Amino acid sequence: MRILDKINSPEDLRSLNLKQLEVLAQEIREELVSIVSRTGGHLAPNLGVVELTLALHMVFHSPRDKIIWDVGHQCYVHKMLTGRRERLSTLRQFGGLSGFPKREESPHDVFNTGHSSTSVSAALGMALARDLRGEDFEVVAVIGDGALTGGMAFEALNHAGHLRTHLIVVLNDNEMSISGPIGGLASYLSRMRTDPRYFRSKEELELILKRLPRLGPHFLKLIERLKDSLKYLVIPGMLFEELGFTYLGPIDGHNLLQLKEILRQARRTPGPVLVHVVTRKGKGYPPAENQPEVFHGVGPFDPHTGKILPSPGPVTFTSVFGAELVRQAEQDERIVAITAAMPDGTGLTSFARRFPNRFFDVGIAEQHAVTLAAGLATMGFRPVVAIYSTFLQRAIDQVIHDVALMRLPVTFILDRSGLVGEDGETHQGIFDIALLRCIPGMVLMAPKDEQELKCMLVTALQVEGPAAIRYPRGPGVGVPLEDPAQPLPIGKGEILREGRQAVIVAIGPLVYAALNAAEILAARGLDIGVINARFIKPLDKDMIVEWAKKTGHLVTLEEHVVAGGFGSAVLEALAESGCTGVKVRNLGIRDIFVEHGKPDILREKLGLTAAGVAQAVESLLHAL
Amino acid sequence: MRILDKINSPEDLRSLNLKQLEVLAQEIREELVSIVSRTGGHLAPNLGVVELTLALHMVFHSPRDKIIWDVGHQCYVHKMLTGRRERLSTLRQFGGLSGFPKREESPHDVFNTGHSSTSVSAALGMALARDLRGEDFEVVAVIGDGALTGGMAFEALNHAGHLRTHLIVVLNDNEMSISGPIGGLASYLSRMRTDPRYFRSKEELELILKRLPRLGPHFLKLIERLKDSLKYLVIPGMLFEELGFTYLGPIDGHNLLQLKEILRQARRTPGPVLVHVVTRKGKGYPPAENQPEVFHGVGPFDPHTGKILPSPGPVTFTSVFGAELVRQAEQDERIVAITAAMPDGTGLTSFARRFPNRFFDVGIAEQHAVTLAAGLATMGFRPVVAIYSTFLQRAIDQVIHDVALMRLPVTFILDRSGLVGEDGETHQGIFDIALLRCIPGMVLMAPKDEQELKCMLVTALQVEGPAAIRYPRGPGVGVPLEDPAQPLPIGKGEILREGRQAVIVAIGPLVYAALNAAEILAARGLDIGVINARFIKPLDKDMIVEWAKKTGHLVTLEEHVVAGGFGSAVLEALAESGCTGVKVRNLGIRDIFVEHGKPDILREKLGLTAAGVAQAVESLLHAL
Repeated sequence: MRILDKINSPEDLRSLNLKQLEVLAQEIREELVSIVSRTGGHLAPNLGVVELTLALHMVFHSPRDKIIWDVGHQCYVHKMLTGRRERLSTLRQFGGLSGFPKREESPHDVFNTGHSSTSVSAALGMALARDLRGEDFEVVAVIGDGALTGGMAFEALNHAGHLRTHLIVVLNDNEMSISGPIGGLASYLSRMRTDPRYFRSKEELELILKRLPRLGPHFLKLIERLKDSLKYLVIPGMLFEELGFTYLGPIDGHNLLQLKEILRQARRTPGPVLVHVVTRKGKGYPPAENQPEVFHGVGPFDPHTGKILPSPGPVTFTSVFGAELVRQAEQDERIVAITAAMPDGTGLTSFARRFPNRFFDVGIAEQHAVTLAAGLATMGFRPVVAIYSTFLQRAIDQVIHDVALMRLPVTFILDRSGLVGEDGETHQGIFDIALLRCIPGMVLMAPKDEQELKCMLVTALQVEGPAAIRYPRGPGVGVPLEDPAQPLPIGKGEILREGRQAVIVAIGPLVYAALNAAEILAARGLDIGVINARFIKPLDKDMIVEWAKKTGHLVTLEEHVVAGGFGSAVLEALAESGCTGVKVRNLGIRDIFVEHGKPDILREKLGLTAAGVAQAVESLLHAL
Repeated sequence: MRILDKINSPEDLRSLNLKQLEVLAQEIREELVSIVSRTGGHLAPNLGVVELTLALHMVFHSPRDKIIWDVGHQCYVHKMLTGRRERLSTLRQFGGLSGFPKREESPHDVFNTGHSSTSVSAALGMALARDLRGEDFEVVAVIGDGALTGGMAFEALNHAGHLRTHLIVVLNDNEMSISGPIGGLASYLSRMRTDPRYFRSKEELELILKRLPRLGPHFLKLIERLKDSLKYLVIPGMLFEELGFTYLGPIDGHNLLQLKEILRQARRTPGPVLVHVVTRKGKGYPPAENQPEVFHGVGPFDPHTGKILPSPGPVTFTSVFGAELVRQAEQDERIVAITAAMPDGTGLTSFARRFPNRFFDVGIAEQHAVTLAAGLATMGFRPVVAIYSTFLQRAIDQVIHDVALMRLPVTFILDRSGLVGEDGETHQGIFDIALLRCIPGMVLMAPKDEQELKCMLVTALQVEGPAAIRYPRGPGVGVPLEDPAQPLPIGKGEILREGRQAVIVAIGPLVYAALNAAEILAARGLDIGVINARFIKPLDKDMIVEWAKKTGHLVTLEEHVVAGGFGSAVLEALAESGCTGVKVRNLGIRDIFVEHGKPDILREKLGLTAAGVAQAVESLLHAL
């Protein structure tokens, strides 16, 4: 029987000796590799925090003590140790365990995460609540060095340092966010890690200092000053100290004894404490250690060789965007590209290689990314900001205030719009239309397929103001790609199928579901048209109103919440045109957050399939 | 003739000697007080930067060199010196000068600002653009210590420190944001300002250091280390240095010679440079020096005594909220209140005085404010986050991801929703409905008057999930206030006037404009009903559909953009109910940003008055 088999809760860890814990760590790593090689998921971050998670659960008493996992993709070990090991094989699958902390899953998950840099704020809130209630539990935020560059983490550190409430921030420093360290902060941390002077003990230095007074009164004042300055010599985390934190570390995050000792010390230390733990992403699994970016978030792979299993199917929207952007940038020197720590995920890797001077990875800093683009745009450049739909939620004010207000020509690429699948609730890109279409002058598009994406990129780059393109994660539709891509007329949709009885107005790849629905209905003797709106804003009112009037029945279709979404824009257009008497049904996502699971399963559940659309059209036609 | 009369552009400053410049500074201050005492505006920040602005315009050559004013309310002196002095008396008035930098006004305004903490990002973008184009102008961001606590400023500093592109950040340190310094950063800056050791010259210390080697080889290694540590002794801005900036300062921001010298030094220094300038808010005008919070943003006042002129009219929505919150908090210990540097502006001053332990001013850090509230809510508290509508744009992701996803009971108070008037484009609260109503489970209300605001606060505090209340700046409607305020049934509107021919469905104080419009139309023989929807979400579909069907004509009314707004929600409800054949007109703000000016003037222009609504209803009734 393996040690892991005996661990049903963190309490079971306490009886283990160091040797057993080290064996346990090994067993955990083997199981992580085995499971994630089948389910896919965030492997490298979890391999990096095995010892840290064990130490946290030995020193602190969860759920009485609160552990908050920033971003949360490093919580698999925590889930294994808190009674969810048996369900780990259901990870990220529909109905299975979430890949992120979820309060609904366990009392040990005290704060849901998914987006970066929230943990210190949440931890401070819990610590303040504790103090107000006169309780005495511990609150621990575990945050990576990448997440630390997100502005809100700094806001929280600054506030915590001011309040001096006791809480513990564990800086899990693996020398990278997802694809590499960015920023002055990163080099600061790196200096701390590599400069042996920082490891020198305070005691040794004080000993030397004590000998100095022998030199005579002449030097007394100097000595006083030197004593002060020694503070900076022996306290490497001066940056954090100056913000009001007590800094402990850096220590080896794979040494269990050291980890336990420093966490205990942190618990004893009053006020806010920052514990600097140096870990290695992918630790213990050579393929992940060697390619931590690849194994950060990974699909199924061969656990023995680390070879990623090929994902069949057409090229992804992401790669089509990346290639087209390079093509455009070759012809237009004004094009620059910006990512917030996601050069691979957003398809900008080849751009970065081809045009290193015109590529900017700002780290996890979406707000700065957008306003940096605005600054570049004021000087005549054409910045393309590629950010996942869900992460652009972080920078809505900057889109409004720093780009749209000045009508600056910035192109926003919203990858992973719509249902993202396995990452679940926190990552679904289902709010971007509502968040962006309210902004005056914004041009907002969604391509039905990867060829249209190419055309929309060309179009966006010609707009004399802000433009955004939303498209889904994963493979395109499989249409042939043609060059050169032609710009589309702004605000014009296309009628793909004429029909007398109803018209489906769709946006994005759901246009194909609409076409299939029309086929299904044709087989039932119904004559249904399909419009690809292409532009959510400005909307092709003329075409939509024309077909609404012709058919009297209109169904809108989008992978987005209905409230304020594309269908809502169509309703506004109909009202504005005085077009009454048309029966309308808005298909999309009702007022819910959408859980994790394969997008196909989720679409089925939400009725966003050809069959679901066909049924909705039919019921609209039969409605009284 | 005064010296100021001879200044038509920054070039005219160059011929002046120190004595003349000092006289000029005095003349500028007199004119600022004289004008702002009539127009209202941001007085204290401008009085604080007179010498800094003069020095910037002498050392740098605007508009070739780019000066970016963070937040921008300290740009009046800049406007006076760049050819807009004559128009300064039109400040913040409709058709007049903006109170913030505006590219449309002058080539000397290179980036529009209004919200905080954007300047370093914009400056870095311009600096990168300069480098890409091989040009050599200077880029200077001027940012206050308050704005520096905003997370995106840190994101930008971190990125700039990483890139090592030359740019200059002038930290205008006046020891406060709007109402006082917040955060570890603030105490850090304060230590630098007050500890005379920081002013010690590097030279002096090196001199002392040189004598140390005499002590023998025994100490050689120690000396090496001490030399290193001296870096921290002589460089006070270690925090900025560690991020990759060269730190210069701190210096007296009212000493013109020192300012010019340090700015010249900054210009010569390669890479990113931070210049720490200590200024006094309100400098030179005793009433503003003594009460910088009061004179931060101020209405008309007596320039001789500094007495604020009383603003007539009923109590403000803000003060009604503040008083009711205190009342509720007396009965419910779970209520805590959070502001982002706006305790006065959001009406929380009396709460802060009454419940200092339950009040948190986080500084300019809206993202942190929201997630801090989420953390408190997980522990059973009922946080009330009071943020201006326009500033909540900064924290949309946190509302979605950290509050709504976990259905945490956080109440959002959106003061200054709708048209804010004189602050203009950047501050209009006209996007909040679209940004919030797409969020699943959100309860969103808008009171028609100050009594209803009290009821809505009571209601929101009982919601088991996120709730938001939006209300306008300034005086309430003048209705009598009753206690205790009763909760409202969630999702129920009220029919205020029944009518056969059309129904106006309004939200917020525009409900009164709707009632007046109905009166106007009654005089013309038309029978028009009025519904106060109260809830934007959940919407009272039954009531709205009932009256839509009864009358066949429906007009929605909101002080918000139409796209994705309240009217859009009404259209969705009608479509969902299969309610066809109803003519609908959505009144609100079309796809434009709204300039500055008195709200009444703006409403008139936008047709959001009783007369405008009456006309719209009439034209709807007569439409074919």
